[in-house]
Order: sequence, then C-alpha cells, then structure tokens
Amino acid sequence: MANNTESLYQKYISVFQKIADIKYASAVLQWDQETYLPKKGNDFRGRQIATLNETAHELFTDEKTGALLLELSGKNDLSDIQKRNIELSTEDYNRNIKFTSSFVRKMSEAINTSFHAWIAARKANDFKVFEKPLAAVIAIKREEASIIGYTGHPYDALMNDYDKGLTVTTVDALFANLRPALTQILDDISHKKQVNDDFLQQHFNKDAQWKYGMELLKKLHFDLEAGRQDISEHPFTTSFNSKDVRLTTRIDENDFSNMTWSCIHECGHGLYEQGLPAEQYGLPLGEFCSLSIHESQSRLWENNIGRSLPFWKKEYPNLQRAFPQLDKIDTMDFYKSINKVQPSLIRTEADELTYHFHVMIRYELEKKLIEGSLMAADIPAYWNEQYKNYLGVTVPDDKRGCLQDVHWSHGSFGYFATYSIGSLYASQLMLTMQKEKQISDEFNSGGTGLIFSWLQQQIYPYGRYYHSDALCKHATGEPLNAEYFIKYAKDKFSEIYVS
Amino acid sequence: MANNTESLYQKYISVFQKIADIKYASAVLQWDQETYLPKKGNDFRGRQIATLNETAHELFTDEKTGALLLELSGKNDLSDIQKRNIELSTEDYNRNIKFTSSFVRKMSEAINTSFHAWIAARKANDFKVFEKPLAAVIAIKREEASIIGYTGHPYDALMNDYDKGLTVTTVDALFANLRPALTQILDDISHKKQVNDDFLQQHFNKDAQWKYGMELLKKLHFDLEAGRQDISEHPFTTSFNSKDVRLTTRIDENDFSNMTWSCIHECGHGLYEQGLPAEQYGLPLGEFCSLSIHESQSRLWENNIGRSLPFWKKEYPNLQRAFPQLDKIDTMDFYKSINKVQPSLIRTEADELTYHFHVMIRYELEKKLIEGSLMAADIPAYWNEQYKNYLGVTVPDDKRGCLQDVHWSHGSFGYFATYSIGSLYASQLMLTMQKEKQISDEFNSGGTGLIFSWLQQQIYPYGRYYHSDALCKHATGEPLNAEYFIKYAKDKFSEIYVS
Repeated sequence: MANNTESLYQKYISVFQKIADIKYASAVLQWDQETYLPKKGNDFRGRQIATLNETAHELFTDEKTGALLLELSGKNDLSDIQKRNIELSTEDYNRNIKFTSSFVRKMSEAINTSFHAWIAARKANDFKVFEKPLAAVIAIKREEASIIGYTGHPYDALMNDYDKGLTVTTVDALFANLRPALTQILDDISHKKQVNDDFLQQHFNKDAQWKYGMELLKKLHFDLEAGRQDISEHPFTTSFNSKDVRLTTRIDENDFSNMTWSCIHECGHGLYEQGLPAEQYGLPLGEFCSLSIHESQSRLWENNIGRSLPFWKKEYPNLQRAFPQLDKIDTMDFYKSINKVQPSLIRTEADELTYHFHVMIRYELEKKLIEGSLMAADIPAYWNEQYKNYLGVTVPDDKRGCLQDVHWSHGSFGYFATYSIGSLYASQLMLTMQKEKQISDEFNSGGTGLIFSWLQQQIYPYGRYYHSDALCKHATGEPLNAEYFIKYAKDKFSEIYVS
Repeated sequence: MANNTESLYQKYISVFQKIADIKYASAVLQWDQETYLPKKGNDFRGRQIATLNETAHELFTDEKTGALLLELSGKNDLSDIQKRNIELSTEDYNRNIKFTSSFVRKMSEAINTSFHAWIAARKANDFKVFEKPLAAVIAIKREEASIIGYTGHPYDALMNDYDKGLTVTTVDALFANLRPALTQILDDISHKKQVNDDFLQQHFNKDAQWKYGMELLKKLHFDLEAGRQDISEHPFTTSFNSKDVRLTTRIDENDFSNMTWSCIHECGHGLYEQGLPAEQYGLPLGEFCSLSIHESQSRLWENNIGRSLPFWKKEYPNLQRAFPQLDKIDTMDFYKSINKVQPSLIRTEADELTYHFHVMIRYELEKKLIEGSLMAADIPAYWNEQYKNYLGVTVPDDKRGCLQDVHWSHGSFGYFATYSIGSLYASQLMLTMQKEKQISDEFNSGGTGLIFSWLQQQIYPYGRYYHSDALCKHATGEPLNAEYFIKYAKDKFSEIYVS
C-alpha cells in the first residue's frame, strides 16, 4: 500500500474511532439511565445524552469527514476489508448528512421524554400518560422517513436502519407465507392434549433466580470479564465495545420463565457483541450485521437451544438443585411445560409459534403509524382488536397491552419484524450446523461448545462485511428460507403434542 | 438588560452547558469504571474518557468561546451573579487555553493507565507495579505546573486547581502552627489511660453494614432520589449535576468503622453537591467553591457530627439494633472507642488528631515529587521513613503504606492539604453554628436538621461565588483560623481522655 493511502486510512480510523468513543459514551449514559440513575437525575441526563449524540453527529457529518471518505474511495491499493469499511462508512455518511444537528438533538430529547413517560405510564397502567410524548416521537420518525427518502412505503426507510434492504414488500410476503403455516401447526396442536405448566408459576426466590441466571450465562459462554448483567425494567443488551457488553434482565418471583429465557435471549445478543472483531473498533466491520442477524443470535440461544430437549436433559438436574420445588417434575414434563403453546398477552413470554403473531400485530400497527393512517391515540383500541383477531385473547389493561414494549419509547420503529426474521434465520443456521455430525452429536448430549465455535467462525467475525442475506448465504449456502423454521416447528411441536 | 446582552448571555449558558454535558458524561464513565466496569473493558474505556475530555477541552478553548467571554466581560448590564460567572469562566478559559488538546489526551490516558496499575499494585501488594505509570503521571504533572506557571513553588500551580490562591507558603505556615499544637494534645493524652476499642474489630455482616450505611445516609439528609451509593475499591463522591450525586463506600467485615465513617464522610460531600444550585448547571456558580470547602463539608459530618457524643447518644440504640454484638457496650464506651487516638498506618482510618500527620507526610512528599527532588522509585523508602518520624509506626508493606490512596493514580497532586484545611474550616463552621441557641440545642439532643439548613443557606448555594477564605468569612465572620480546630480538639479529647 502506498504511504499516502496508508496514512489516509490511519486518519480515517482515528476519526471514526473518536466518533465511536462519543457514541459509546452516550450508550453508557443510556445504560446507566435504565439501571442505576436516581429518579431526579432524568432531566439532566436527557440533555447530556442529547449533547453527546449531537456532538457525534457533528463530527461524523463534518465536511472534512466526507472529503476523507471520498479521497479513500478512489484508492485502489486498499485491502478488501479496508475497501468495505470505506464503502459502508460512505453509505453511513450519506445517510447522516441528511440530518441536521438540531434534528438529532430534537430526536434525542423527544426519546428521553418518551422513555420516562413510558415508565410512568406503565406504573399508572395508563396509555394516556404515554400518548403525547409517543405522538411526538412518531411525528419525528415520520419526518425521519421523509428525510431519508424511500421508493415504496415510508416504513421501508425506517426498517432500513435495522436491516439494510428490508422492505414492506418483502416482509408482507414473508408473513403471508408464515401466517398460514403457523395457523396449520396451531390447528393441529389444538386437537391434542394441552401440556401442563402449573408448576412454573410457583414462588421462585429472587436471589436464587439471579444466581441461577448468572450461572446460565457462564455455561452459555458469556465472558463475564468482558461484560456484566444488571437489572432493568425491560431486558436489553448494549455494548460499548466487544470487551464491555452489558446485559440486563428482570425477575418475577412468581414466574421463573420470565428471567430464565430473557437471560438466555440477551446472552445470545451478548455473545455476538463479544465476538465482533475488537481490532475493528469504531469501524463498520466492528459492528453487527443487522438487527435481523442480531435477533437470529438471541432467538437461536433462547429457543433452538434454550427450549430444546437435549439442553435440558443435561441442565435440568442443575436447575432442580437451584429450585428444589421442581424435584417432583420430570425432565420431559418440564421440557413440555417450557414449550407450552397458548395464545397470550405478552410478546416476550410467548411461545415460539404464537410469538410471530405478536410481531405481525406490531408490524402492521407501526406501518399504519408511519404512513399516518393511525394516530397515537388510537393505539390501544387497535392493539386490543388485533390481539382478538390474531390471538383470540382479550387485553385486560394497557400494561399487558400496548405498553408492554420499550421500543417505541426509544424511537425504535421498524425493529419488530427483525424478531420474526431473526427466528427464521436461527432455525436455518441451526439446521445447517446440525448437518455436521460432531456438532449434532455434542448438541444431542446437551453441549453447546461446538455451536458457539461455529458461530464464532461463521457469523461473529464478519461484522457488517455482508448484509443479512449474504451472510446467511455465506453461512448456510442459501439466502433466507422460511421452510427451515417451519420444518423445525413442525418436528418439534408434533413431538411435544402427541395425543 | 439590553436585548443584546441577554442573548449573548444565553449563548454563553448554552455553550457552557454543552461543555458541562460532555465533562459530566466523562464523569459517568469514570464512575462506572470504578464501580461496574468489567475487567477487560479497561482499555477502550480509557480511550473513551480521553476522547470526551479532549472534546470538552476543544470546545472550551475554541477561539469563539474566548471571544464570547471577552464580549460579555465588557457588558455593564449584567447582574452580579452573571458578572461573577463571566469572570470565573474567563479565569478558567485563560487557564485552559494554555493546554493543547494532545496534552489533555496524554494526561487522560496516562491517568487511566496509572489507575489500573494502582489497582494491580494493591492486589500484588507491590509498589513496583505502580512505579512506572506513576512516574509518567508525575512527569505530566510537572509539565502541567510549568505550563500553568507560578511565582513561588511549582506545587503552588497544582494546589491552585483544588483551592484557588493556596500556596506552599500558606500551607507551610499553617502546618508549622498545627503540628506543635497537635503534638501537645497528643502528649497530654499519652499520659492518660488508653480507651478500649476491641469490640469494633468483631465480625460485622456485610449486608447488615450496607443496610445500616444506607439508613445513615437517609438520616443525614442525603436525597436518595437525587443520588445513590455503590461499592468501589476506594470510597469517593462524584456528581453529574445536583440531581445525580454518586457516593461509593467499601465494606470490611472485620472492621465496622471503615464503612461507617467513610459513608458519613462521602455523605458530607454529597450533601454539598446536592445543595449546589441546579439552575446554574454548567456555570461556575453551579460548581463547588474549592476542595478545601468540599472537605470541610465531609469532615464536618464525619467528625464534628459523626464522632460526637450527642449524635451517638441518639443514634446508638439504632446501631445496636442493627448489630446486636454491641448490646453489652454502653454509649460512652462506644463513643470513646470511635475517638480512640493512636498513631496508625491508614489515613482514612486515622483518628481526628493524628490524621493531620498523614496529610503532612503526603504534602511534603508531593512537594518533593513536583519540584523533582524525589523520584517515584524513592517513594516507599521516603514514605516509611516519614511514618516513623511523624507517627512512630513501622509500615509493614506497600498496601498499608504508599499504595493506600487512590489520588496519585488519578493525577490528583496538590489535593491532600485540603483535607487538613477542610477539617479546620469544619470546626470553625461548627463552632460558629453552635453559637445559635436553636442549632446548639438541637445538636445537643442528637439532631442535625438545623445544621443542614444552616449549610443549605450559608455554604451550598454560593457555588464558586466566593473563594474559600471569603466564603468562610461570609459564613463565620472571619477567614480561616486554626484556633477553632485546636480548641475543639482540646475540649473534646480532654473529656475522652480523663484519667
């Protein structure tokens, strides 16, 4: 590489790492806000986060940054990796310069307000407390969509933030395929004897749950010297670099499942973040591919592994040691209980099948909010109606209805579809891995070491090098194919629901 | 006020609050580093903090900031408060423009390295692990002193950071007066019967200590909705605004005193930070006066209140409820035990009298390091020799010797004298308050509400409006006068050591 290119590329690294430092500092402040911030600190914290976001944005959209990227784009003596970084940073730059600093600040402050309103609304169990701050966020997101621009649906512009190239056309088609397939499986199940899960709703001591969750994280390869777990209102994963990945969980003393599978879910996210290449810190190739791939990682560990029979055959005795109240429940009954299929109110607690209906409801709802055909005030009624339509359940109150997810309060519109898509990717990855005898043998005896190694080789190190579908093709030989998930679901649930 | 002045002043507020946002964000990252940061996250955290410090510095030292301050300095239609803000910001600006951004970054990175080396050195109980990173910090602090400039001693330049106007000449004179007075009191005590404190070195359960510490904070008026307490290696207080003040403590299960009085000490700092005017966020009048005044607040609560007989007459039954192992110890014996005077190794655990010798040793040592007459490598030998001279004790190892304080690892050179000066201020404030009958009556029956109110009126709201001595004069009618402390000490200890 010519000296000039080398020094230009070094300059690029230095600028982008500086921007990353500020963005990740903002992430630390947000993490703290959801875990440890004293109540009265909200307002100043909001402006501190807004200033950091604005500062990072200013630095990123500086004309000098653009000129540097342009100059590097013309260089032929960059490595493949370097070229891809410049290409992606240029894409990001072109997207970011569309936003003024004041727009970024406005967004950041509106989100801060809406997050606290969401917390308050949940406490009051009243959507009205959240309505106005949410309406403000929706207005800004609509503005964002029109600033970004789109050819099809305005919602495409927002989904792009979570999975580049994802469109309403694609997702509509995917869901149109998935919904009848799921309905068919659910219909089959409905003729079988329902499984019993009463014993999961006993009292499970809080400290014992926390301790068990921490043990699970260790067993599932999460590096606690490069990350930690804390408690928050809504479980999430955030990362300040691959050596400092933070998970959160929540504990319900009357429902052991809540903590356990949210812990495994976030662990899946955390493993991906810890596996990203540290030497690419601050550059696109040090960042995750897409939210769909991120969710494929969380759903893979949560469901394909964490609700599998082989895993619990090995792990169940440990669980019983931690919670002797399960002593009289055998492994098979436990396994069935954690896979009980039943339409329900809360997405994060839903079974693997009806889960997708929760996602479809949100997806349809968000599309309407962003295209402007539904107002914030109409959310509860629409929500409750859709839960009736899709799941046949009656929503008793806002907390168990349209106030259950943190996403909107964070300004995350366009996110939800990635949960379903992630689940589809997860099954495709898992069934591909299981074609390798060693992996399959280990997994069948409850081990996950080789699965982790495979992901460490096939998924984590690539960062944003590939888009979702290309990464999927690279790892499995073909792009996203929902048939893998449908096969997985049919096989699994026909064994659980037998008579 | 003319419209032009008003809008210029608003611009000043907006610039300085933005700088404050970034500085306080850096403080959040530092707080996290000492409380929750996973081990492997150190390196990236170091560069993130360095970037924030550099960014705040660049914003502050921007020529536009200077021009704005200059323009506002010429305005006659500012209020007194506004004028004082501009005056102090101008002082800060003139000090800060002496430093290049790369110097600020170099300092920040050296401090990050030395902090982690200090932690490692304490673990290894070996000063050598800390020596080189410390030497690097000292070199930078010497450079800093020469960049700032000084007329007397280079150490003056550094002490100025903690208490504007403080000089080696002043402190030398103060200590030359204090040392013989203390020696006299100690000599008197040495002829009396030593008090017994064996019962303090029992086993005190960690969780019970934590719980008791939290109760103390509430009783001592710390607002836990505008702050919190966590655990760290070395107790400290930090603040991100007056609505978010963070204290830390540490717990030794075999020494109940360690947690209790560090908790009260940090609480005193915390009350001051919570009492600063929130509406002056980011401006000098929203900042504390000086470290000497800050320490006067911590030492006042720790010693003048927290080691007083009236306080414990009221509080002791609560303590006994928390720790039944103290059931057989009566209040007077407990009171004496927590005021036992005995030369010792650890500053933060020292009694109120010999404490000042710990400070004098560090003060003399730092002067030598900064003037270049002592090298980092020579610290342990010098330290141990001075502990022999001043306190007559033999230092058994580095952990109980020159590795005990976090300050140097943070680059805080010039800080220690403020602990002694703070103690002197504390006694002067306390004896002044006690002249008011209501305050005195309440305090004599173990209450602290009126003391807190007095501080809320006389100290907290002024921010940096006055320098230390002027604030002292404003609150007590005269500048610093060590005789208050000497009288307090004589009276108190002649009652504790009677025969």
